Amino acid sequence: MSKLVIVGTVAFDAIETPFGKTDKILGGAATFIGLAASHFNIDSAAVSVVGGDFPQEYLDLLSDKNINIDGIEIVKDGKTFFWSGRYHNDMNTRDTLVTELNVLADFNPIVPEAYKDAEVVMLGNLHPIVQLGVLEQMTTRPKLVILDTMNFWMDCALDELHQVIKKIDVITINDEEARQLTGEYSLVVAARKIHEMGPQYVVIKKGEHGALLFHDDNMFYAPALPLEEVFDPTGAGDTFAGGFAGYLANSEDYSFENMKNAVIYGSTLASFCVEKFGTERMQNLSNDDVEYRLKEFKKLTHFDIELA
Amino acid sequence: MSKLVIVGTVAFDAIETPFGKTDKILGGAATFIGLAASHFNIDSAAVSVVGGDFPQEYLDLLSDKNINIDGIEIVKDGKTFFWSGRYHNDMNTRDTLVTELNVLADFNPIVPEAYKDAEVVMLGNLHPIVQLGVLEQMTTRPKLVILDTMNFWMDCALDELHQVIKKIDVITINDEEARQLTGEYSLVVAARKIHEMGPQYVVIKKGEHGALLFHDDNMFYAPALPLEEVFDPTGAGDTFAGGFAGYLANSEDYSFENMKNAVIYGSTLASFCVEKFGTERMQNLSNDDVEYRLKEFKKLTHFDIELA
Repeated sequence: MSKLVIVGTVAFDAIETPFGKTDKILGGAATFIGLAASHFNIDSAAVSVVGGDFPQEYLDLLSDKNINIDGIEIVKDGKTFFWSGRYHNDMNTRDTLVTELNVLADFNPIVPEAYKDAEVVMLGNLHPIVQLGVLEQMTTRPKLVILDTMNFWMDCALDELHQVIKKIDVITINDEEARQLTGEYSLVVAARKIHEMGPQYVVIKKGEHGALLFHDDNMFYAPALPLEEVFDPTGAGDTFAGGFAGYLANSEDYSFENMKNAVIYGSTLASFCVEKFGTERMQNLSNDDVEYRLKEFKKLTHFDIELA
Repeated sequence: MSKLVIVGTVAFDAIETPFGKTDKILGGAATFIGLAASHFNIDSAAVSVVGGDFPQEYLDLLSDKNINIDGIEIVKDGKTFFWSGRYHNDMNTRDTLVTELNVLADFNPIVPEAYKDAEVVMLGNLHPIVQLGVLEQMTTRPKLVILDTMNFWMDCALDELHQVIKKIDVITINDEEARQLTGEYSLVVAARKIHEMGPQYVVIKKGEHGALLFHDDNMFYAPALPLEEVFDPTGAGDTFAGGFAGYLANSEDYSFENMKNAVIYGSTLASFCVEKFGTERMQNLSNDDVEYRLKEFKKLTHFDIELA
């Protein structure tokens, strides 16, 4: 069984959308990645940090999903990272209301001994120096290293971001971030420039417009499932990444052809994530639900033109 | 051989993009629709109006593509409709610089006698009253009536637009227009509301993000081919519509399943249209070029997940 190391925040989120608002609920990149990856038959471990205020029930929830939490440090006298945001009516844009780094400010990630030879490492959105620190602890070069990042690090830690980008196999970023990182409007040209920075595979997430996968001259475009209602987009990108990483770790096939399927799994899982606040939908998602929606996905994109 | 009646403008365009600008060149919805539809083995006729200033060589160009021009009225002492626009750097937005209706102001469309029993009617973007006037001239109810329209008519002729929408089978509009027409942000909900207005099939064009086809509870999502460079988006929507209508008229199969293929043909043809200014690329597009890109399209979207 393949091992997957997941690095990222485990956090409190407070979310406002046009549909309502929440108190502090479970959030964080590693949480969403872990919940998505738990749909695959793999041995995954979260590497993160929380404060003494973090409820045991949230840790139990991750354990119950077969996510190893030995790498989640608990700083007893510290407070858990807290993010609060408000989505606009179109659900595509949001304002950050509060960011309290708390224990994240001094986060020094420790990969548990048993996972230092993991096949797949998923570096969730964090300071690039922390992401690099995790890679340096691996005793064997993982078969696949996937990096998620965001515009914030391009603004304030670009050199460090380039250092980690050099060492990875797959980068997942959104369209605006791909444009910012390269200065190119065309995503085809942007992907080529990102290839030149290091990653052999570039995944560009376009939210409701789907996701693009690039590898050399090959492209794959997975649309997003059109939804009646997007209730809360928080964690959709991380859920995509978790599905992508989990599928690949489970299949142990890191080819472009198989990565297409990983994109489809990631998109499918993300389509559930947005149906409820925070992690609620992902906590109660059966494999049957996932299978059923994969079939819908296939119907959504399949056509039958016969070509010579 | 199926007959296709194409109603729309035949016009002069003057275009500015970040890549350059043109003098007055051949443009107009019926022109782009006709050029796209000319890739299919059908008998198509354009219904439009031009002024005495319209060059014979442009009319010959349409005739050479096997588009019947008996329905293009020439108002000798009038001037041809003229539109001029400037695209912004992102190529997704543009400013209209000049709109001179000229002969279009009094356009009274006449469907040639031989085409009043056409199987397919493509109503290009025009005043809804003109679109209605064409439908009323048909002696037999066409097997398929497709309507293209735009936000302008929603602003200033909404009642008339609703009258024509009631009488058609397929509407093609862009995402913002679908939202404006229904007051719904979710395209799934918007499509359902448009169904209730009349059309059994709703095609929502999302530009670089592809196109969605809706029919009852069925959806199909065709991504757009990601391009290195969009040179001039003028006419892309009309080219899509022309490919869609031409494919269906040729195959004489108006089912949802076959309409998926029509969307793919429309998207493929539109991907060529934007490569050069105005109609230039469409004038010199071979069927081999189209076949080759259809294969790329299939590669772009095909994946191989086996489901139970």
